[in-house]
Amino acid sequence: MKLGTVGRTVKIGVIGIGSRGVGQLDTLLGMPDVEVVAVCDKYEDRTKAAQEQVQKARGYLPAGTTDYRELNAMEGMEAVIIMTSWQTHIAIALDAMEHGKIPGLEVGGASSIDECWQLVRTSERTGIPVMLLENCCYNQEEMNLLNMIKQGIFGELIHCRGGYQHDLREEIGNGDIKRHYRQDNFMHRNGELYPTHELGPIAQYLNLNRGNRMLSLVSMSSKAVGMNAWMKKNRPDSPLAQAKFNEGDVVTTMIKCANGETIVLTHDCSLPRPYSRGGYLQGTGGVWEEDGRRIFLDGITPLDKYNDHIFVPDAPYMEQYIHPLWKEYKEFGLRGGHGGMDYLVFRAFFESIQQGIPFPIDVYDTASWMAITCLSEQSISMGSMPVPVPDFTDGRWLNREERPGDIFSLDKVCPEAFE
Amino acid sequence: MKLGTVGRTVKIGVIGIGSRGVGQLDTLLGMPDVEVVAVCDKYEDRTKAAQEQVQKARGYLPAGTTDYRELNAMEGMEAVIIMTSWQTHIAIALDAMEHGKIPGLEVGGASSIDECWQLVRTSERTGIPVMLLENCCYNQEEMNLLNMIKQGIFGELIHCRGGYQHDLREEIGNGDIKRHYRQDNFMHRNGELYPTHELGPIAQYLNLNRGNRMLSLVSMSSKAVGMNAWMKKNRPDSPLAQAKFNEGDVVTTMIKCANGETIVLTHDCSLPRPYSRGGYLQGTGGVWEEDGRRIFLDGITPLDKYNDHIFVPDAPYMEQYIHPLWKEYKEFGLRGGHGGMDYLVFRAFFESIQQGIPFPIDVYDTASWMAITCLSEQSISMGSMPVPVPDFTDGRWLNREERPGDIFSLDKVCPEAFE
Repeated sequence: MKLGTVGRTVKIGVIGIGSRGVGQLDTLLGMPDVEVVAVCDKYEDRTKAAQEQVQKARGYLPAGTTDYRELNAMEGMEAVIIMTSWQTHIAIALDAMEHGKIPGLEVGGASSIDECWQLVRTSERTGIPVMLLENCCYNQEEMNLLNMIKQGIFGELIHCRGGYQHDLREEIGNGDIKRHYRQDNFMHRNGELYPTHELGPIAQYLNLNRGNRMLSLVSMSSKAVGMNAWMKKNRPDSPLAQAKFNEGDVVTTMIKCANGETIVLTHDCSLPRPYSRGGYLQGTGGVWEEDGRRIFLDGITPLDKYNDHIFVPDAPYMEQYIHPLWKEYKEFGLRGGHGGMDYLVFRAFFESIQQGIPFPIDVYDTASWMAITCLSEQSISMGSMPVPVPDFTDGRWLNREERPGDIFSLDKVCPEAFE
Repeated sequence: MKLGTVGRTVKIGVIGIGSRGVGQLDTLLGMPDVEVVAVCDKYEDRTKAAQEQVQKARGYLPAGTTDYRELNAMEGMEAVIIMTSWQTHIAIALDAMEHGKIPGLEVGGASSIDECWQLVRTSERTGIPVMLLENCCYNQEEMNLLNMIKQGIFGELIHCRGGYQHDLREEIGNGDIKRHYRQDNFMHRNGELYPTHELGPIAQYLNLNRGNRMLSLVSMSSKAVGMNAWMKKNRPDSPLAQAKFNEGDVVTTMIKCANGETIVLTHDCSLPRPYSRGGYLQGTGGVWEEDGRRIFLDGITPLDKYNDHIFVPDAPYMEQYIHPLWKEYKEFGLRGGHGGMDYLVFRAFFESIQQGIPFPIDVYDTASWMAITCLSEQSISMGSMPVPVPDFTDGRWLNREERPGDIFSLDKVCPEAFE
């Protein structure tokens, strides 16, 4: 559907209304074909605030509960949006499916391979689809790059890199005060805790689970000193000032794909630094780098005066190869958080439901992307041993059709899932 | 000594005079305190051309031979400069030491851990020092960064990256015609073939072999398609057009250090791309990136209008923290290849010999840096298994003094080697 088209109403529940949830709820409340019939947060104050947020925006008071099982069991809703702590996404999604609700999961990594399998098996058994709401797959640069890749501009893809490089010391350090789950995760785990913002787009570039898949990975962690330093400086009187944080300041993960491509991910959230997803894309036709926003395309971008290869600013190429959805979106007018991508990923979720078509990011993508977190913990715990990435498709990746380049136009999602 | 000071004459032999050797010989012939008494290349035409090169520059005909053993056995020289194919550097250096000559090795990786041990043991037994002529340790940016690090600007170092990212398809593809060893290496090996340009400077940053050391590494290789594509396009009638190249187009290596730092190396020479050593340096105080030449220093570099962390151009900081040797060098006048660094690494070699002081890059550095190549091959061959990096110092790394920040001023090399 054209952006802005009002489809049939999808009634939903919203679970997990922390700071991310409040912002996303606001975006949801701006969609006339989405009706929030119930809200849930384990903290009562957040649940009440969310009820008031809905009432203020839409003029009615939704149901409210602090127990996600109660929300999942309610009648009169088709889907639930899960925006709780990372470690609870899958358990809540499983419960939702058992109650006939379609789960849309905010991003985060998995804690065990078995819970990833449970997500897949429960979805297959119940016939209820699952979508990871990976907003970065809908970001402008990533979609333009996907468009360029589908047009062959980069040739045969060989190597991709990406990272979640974000100074979150304050959020993590104050997690106990602000009830933020990142603190627990950083204190007790050590791994690639947040892989999907960069891996999601890369998975589209490399057709993962559609003629290609991740075979194995190996992770390595640096020492962890950033959070301790921050705590001692900023909260010297807290009992946490001496707390040990396990999460290495920089965690690097290398992934090998069935068709021979390699992926390198970087998780870097406890040191002072500017934000970057560190995107890097390399094929037989050229290279693109997020840092510095530079591109080199063999035989396309200009050479220097000595006829040597040089990088040039990517802006003209981003404009030339703008993804059709983003062209439409700019004319329609950007809305929602994170530069507009939050809105688009929600529209992909709702329009797929309205039209009864498969999700562009399906349960196999969700399971395999989330699995990277616990697999990286395993690798690090064993001194950077390689660990296999399960084939959550049970071999169907061999024949699942490659996504067309315009998959993200929403009205042309590929028809092969749940065959 | 001040740059330009003429010390006592050091008589040398020069082994390996391919395209690199010709350029380096030219730099050597410009030094009044260096006398080239013999030259050697396994190809007679190259040996003869080198003899003529010396005669033209200095007015005398040096001895010439196609057998390095013959050169090493000659009387009347103190040192040999080895610039042959990668896989022969160590064997020639061993033979040189047995004949009482001090070997200076052009860069390249090792083929086995045992030959690295032989280099160390032979040097220890004979008392003859060894220096890897790693020119990038003397490059301006790397030395300025070292200066900043020693002044604490980056805080505690956590993570470094670097790469040899250089489109060498033509050199590799025409290796059989041009007698270049890279072709054999790329056809038959698969690993981090050329680690030291980036690892050398990183080793200085992290004090490797001086209170820190590399513990283990793991490597992953992408598929190899770049060279085949190049051969088919550029030499379709050659028997090599269908040759299989083993070397993956992008090889990534993660290294764990004793003090908890991590290093990521990238080898990328068979795809079209601009040159970059992909330098990246991150500590508790900030981040520097070669690509885009950007820096962020917490509390030092300016923030944006929202008070958010941003990268800024590194130029003013490179100027502010210019290494004293480079300040002197600029006043003296740059000379030699690769932006002046080739000259500096030679001067470090000769002045250390003239003054009878330890080399700034010694046999332990040489062995451990070169070992990365065969260790990465081992890791890749076993499906990216972690492999240990030997402690070539036999525990002396614990007490070997950290290099002072001005080690590269040449007259202040650290006095701890060969104790």
